[in-house]
Amino acid sequence: KEVAKLLEMKVQLGGDEGKHKFVLKTPKGTRDYSPKQMAIRERVFNAIITCFKRHGAEVIDTPVFELKETLTGKYGEDSKLIYDLKDQGGELLSLRYDLTVPFARYLAMNKITNIKRYHIAKVYRRDNPAMTRGRYREFYQCDFDIAGHFDPMIPDAECLKIVHEILSDLQLGDFLIKVNDRCILDGMFAVCGVPDSKFRTICSSVDKLDKMPWEEVRSEMVGEKGLSPEAADHIGEYVQLHGEHRGVEPLALFFQARQGGPAMERHKAAYTTGQAHRCGCCCTGRPEAWLVSTGGLDLIERLLQDPKLSQNKLAKEGLGDMKLLFEYLTLFGITGKISFDLSLARGLDYYTGVIFEAVLLQQENDHVEEPVSVGSVAGGGRYDGLVGMFDPKGRKVPCVGVSIGIERIFSILEQRVEASEEKIRTTETQVLVASAQKKLLEERLKLITELWDAGIKAEVLYKKNPKLLNQLQYCEDTGIPLVAIVGEQELKDGVVKLRVVATREEVRPVVAWCEGDWLLDSSSQLRPA
Amino acid sequence: KEVAKLLEMKVQLGGDEGKHKFVLKTPKGTRDYSPKQMAIRERVFNAIITCFKRHGAEVIDTPVFELKETLTGKYGEDSKLIYDLKDQGGELLSLRYDLTVPFARYLAMNKITNIKRYHIAKVYRRDNPAMTRGRYREFYQCDFDIAGHFDPMIPDAECLKIVHEILSDLQLGDFLIKVNDRCILDGMFAVCGVPDSKFRTICSSVDKLDKMPWEEVRSEMVGEKGLSPEAADHIGEYVQLHGEHRGVEPLALFFQARQGGPAMERHKAAYTTGQAHRCGCCCTGRPEAWLVSTGGLDLIERLLQDPKLSQNKLAKEGLGDMKLLFEYLTLFGITGKISFDLSLARGLDYYTGVIFEAVLLQQENDHVEEPVSVGSVAGGGRYDGLVGMFDPKGRKVPCVGVSIGIERIFSILEQRVEASEEKIRTTETQVLVASAQKKLLEERLKLITELWDAGIKAEVLYKKNPKLLNQLQYCEDTGIPLVAIVGEQELKDGVVKLRVVATREEVRPVVAWCEGDWLLDSSSQLRPA
Repeated sequence: KEVAKLLEMKVQLGGDEGKHKFVLKTPKGTRDYSPKQMAIRERVFNAIITCFKRHGAEVIDTPVFELKETLTGKYGEDSKLIYDLKDQGGELLSLRYDLTVPFARYLAMNKITNIKRYHIAKVYRRDNPAMTRGRYREFYQCDFDIAGHFDPMIPDAECLKIVHEILSDLQLGDFLIKVNDRCILDGMFAVCGVPDSKFRTICSSVDKLDKMPWEEVRSEMVGEKGLSPEAADHIGEYVQLHGEHRGVEPLALFFQARQGGPAMERHKAAYTTGQAHRCGCCCTGRPEAWLVSTGGLDLIERLLQDPKLSQNKLAKEGLGDMKLLFEYLTLFGITGKISFDLSLARGLDYYTGVIFEAVLLQQENDHVEEPVSVGSVAGGGRYDGLVGMFDPKGRKVPCVGVSIGIERIFSILEQRVEASEEKIRTTETQVLVASAQKKLLEERLKLITELWDAGIKAEVLYKKNPKLLNQLQYCEDTGIPLVAIVGEQELKDGVVKLRVVATREEVRPVVAWCEGDWLLDSSSQLRPA
Repeated sequence: KEVAKLLEMKVQLGGDEGKHKFVLKTPKGTRDYSPKQMAIRERVFNAIITCFKRHGAEVIDTPVFELKETLTGKYGEDSKLIYDLKDQGGELLSLRYDLTVPFARYLAMNKITNIKRYHIAKVYRRDNPAMTRGRYREFYQCDFDIAGHFDPMIPDAECLKIVHEILSDLQLGDFLIKVNDRCILDGMFAVCGVPDSKFRTICSSVDKLDKMPWEEVRSEMVGEKGLSPEAADHIGEYVQLHGEHRGVEPLALFFQARQGGPAMERHKAAYTTGQAHRCGCCCTGRPEAWLVSTGGLDLIERLLQDPKLSQNKLAKEGLGDMKLLFEYLTLFGITGKISFDLSLARGLDYYTGVIFEAVLLQQENDHVEEPVSVGSVAGGGRYDGLVGMFDPKGRKVPCVGVSIGIERIFSILEQRVEASEEKIRTTETQVLVASAQKKLLEERLKLITELWDAGIKAEVLYKKNPKLLNQLQYCEDTGIPLVAIVGEQELKDGVVKLRVVATREEVRPVVAWCEGDWLLDSSSQLRPA
């Protein structure tokens, strides 16, 4: 009873003291990044930026919000997901929904007709997020785009090469890049008897095929969208076609496409039997890139023979582009992970040509009990009309680009780190400046000044008289490899020795005490390069 | 007349064609960053991040918006500058105003009582921006904070050391870091006869002293804020006091503080006469750091003797802290750029102890006609109560931190680059894969695949048959140092040579054509480390 009474008094007092009732959280669909998560995030960013720079990209940045009208009419059905800012007087603003529309606005505003750039930044969508699957309302996009009038399909192929490089480098396990072309889709819709006015909405239905079975998509087309059952069935036949992306048969075509000389012939047996193979002369050190098919060249050829499709101008042009694209992809050696897939549609309105989407096929580490279902990790395509929508005279700047969906990749890597024993360092500190006796703060501060001024990453505990054990424990906890222990003896001898924390092993002395000041050995290995 | 008529028709047609009337711009107070600006920005970020990591900081990130109530009651008069999001159903949100409040929310939410972290991100203020002076509504802050219960003034001193290191590294010209303490200010207000309830508002007036003369500040205090003229005059006497930060006299004190041994004595003459001096044994290679004063130790001693101030508990404690701080700053060797300044007040409500602000004293490059007036480039202080405002039980986590105002630094560096002849590269491409004859696209694409897969940064023009002159011009324009020219002869010889673009000089062959495939010399110097 007494306890209950006291607790009640405490609650009342709490109220009187004006304690805080508000919810302590981040907004729905958002999250903080802890130092550990940031360490993983920076690894991923580094891999991606390195790839973008390897391909000669510049970098730009744009504001997190745009004039509301800049975003209007660009996203079709998804426009309802845009975050608006409150009207506080002045301009009406919205948070950016992707990096593509701000890029197009930037090009038109600055009259740029030729650029290859990347942009890594957060975008905002008022979606219903599935955060466990790596889906958020605030999330990063990593975009690479090529703008300019060029010969067909060369920039498009480079975008696919970039996706292939990044997903390979990150070692996320097996993946597949589905490819299609809006022209082929539109041509297909035409020959199936879809009225022009329904192209975009039927396209949206097709886009759902990766989440819904065909029967449901069909009933949406016929029921909700008023398409004739015949047209829907006709579409159904086409969208179930996609290129083989595994198998021995296509290897022959592949060798043919590479115009295989004697070296090819010599190693063909090894490839077709699936034997491990790294010859160094013809393979690039990535054997998996050789267990390949043409990714769909055979299907393209088949569709070019299709009596209806081959009569449609748009479809024929699209298939011709697709064939050229696959020639370049073959030269890049990446067709093994590519699949020409007539069911790929992409949600956004602004695509006008090649479209693509990369999906992870499975979790690599099978010991994780519930594998993260990740779905699409990259997507993109050609959008030749978007810049023209911003230009006062409607001048077009053809563009093609790719967006890496980094949050899902984080989720996978985070879970993998959790499951493993790997200890991730969140700082880069090389040396802890410690003391063995009391009253040596002054000496420690002088010594660490010398280290900092020489560019060495060093820390000191913010205590006047820290215990040596606590200092060593700090090194162990944070992974600091070296410790410089200052003591009376060291001051007398005029030399501070560095020790490896893990082994207590002495490394050669690098710091000397010279007439009241510390002196760093100029040949010290600790100096940064 | 005819022309006028035609023009009129054109306008009408323009209207009919549905051309775009909207304004093509970024929102007020914001800007895009071009590749060139990004190159400068990345240099600055690198210098800052390197310093933060040198001091053992971890890194975190938080969402760009917070729950509105998270920001409520933290910024005093400035709250009106917060951007709110539109109520679209769900939570009420605001864009972050700084990185300090989100940091405090992060600590309380995750029950973290001990961390040293940095955070670099954009913040938002609906201010009236002076963009030519590097002031924006969307701008970067680079924050470094130390949270935890530690012995007094050690973390505070490290924050000042960090400001000193960053401003020195960036070579922005001469700078001064003004230091004060909210306790001293409050004590001073008390002894001057300011009523408790007016402390914060009078503090805001004092904060305007860097932009307004004392007479105007005084009339604001007396006229608008109802302070007695006597109290105002009394304040006036104090706030005009600040430590000498130049001069020969204080050098003696400085040497004394460093407990100068014989080495000191030997070099003292050189310092006091201002002769260039880099002995390597006692100076750290930064002679300017030695032409120093104590930055205000003398003033602190004088105020500790002040009959009124020394009787005030708060002021006495603050002065004691300040004295300890200066002892540590002397050990760090940075008092030469520090000035204890009683007129420094800082605008934000949440500071509770040491406060500081760094200002650039002049433009370094005098040949710029209109020097950018930059004012404050860094600021910070101690805020021991902020985390407790978020904790349900009001548990306090003492914090001290610094924020680098990067936009003004950009402005200076941008203007300096404009004025100089320096050509800034916006890509890192090492090699352009070019061809001298037509119909070699296939060979170029094979060769660049080999380079990319080996980690070499390479580009190719997206043309089937580009002219050699255009390819070389592209190298010159973008600063690509090397070109690999594929021609019939090279294919016949089986070797592609690399040439230095600037000199046409041949470097040793690194790529060979082997049975239909390119082969990179494995010892190539182009390979990344």
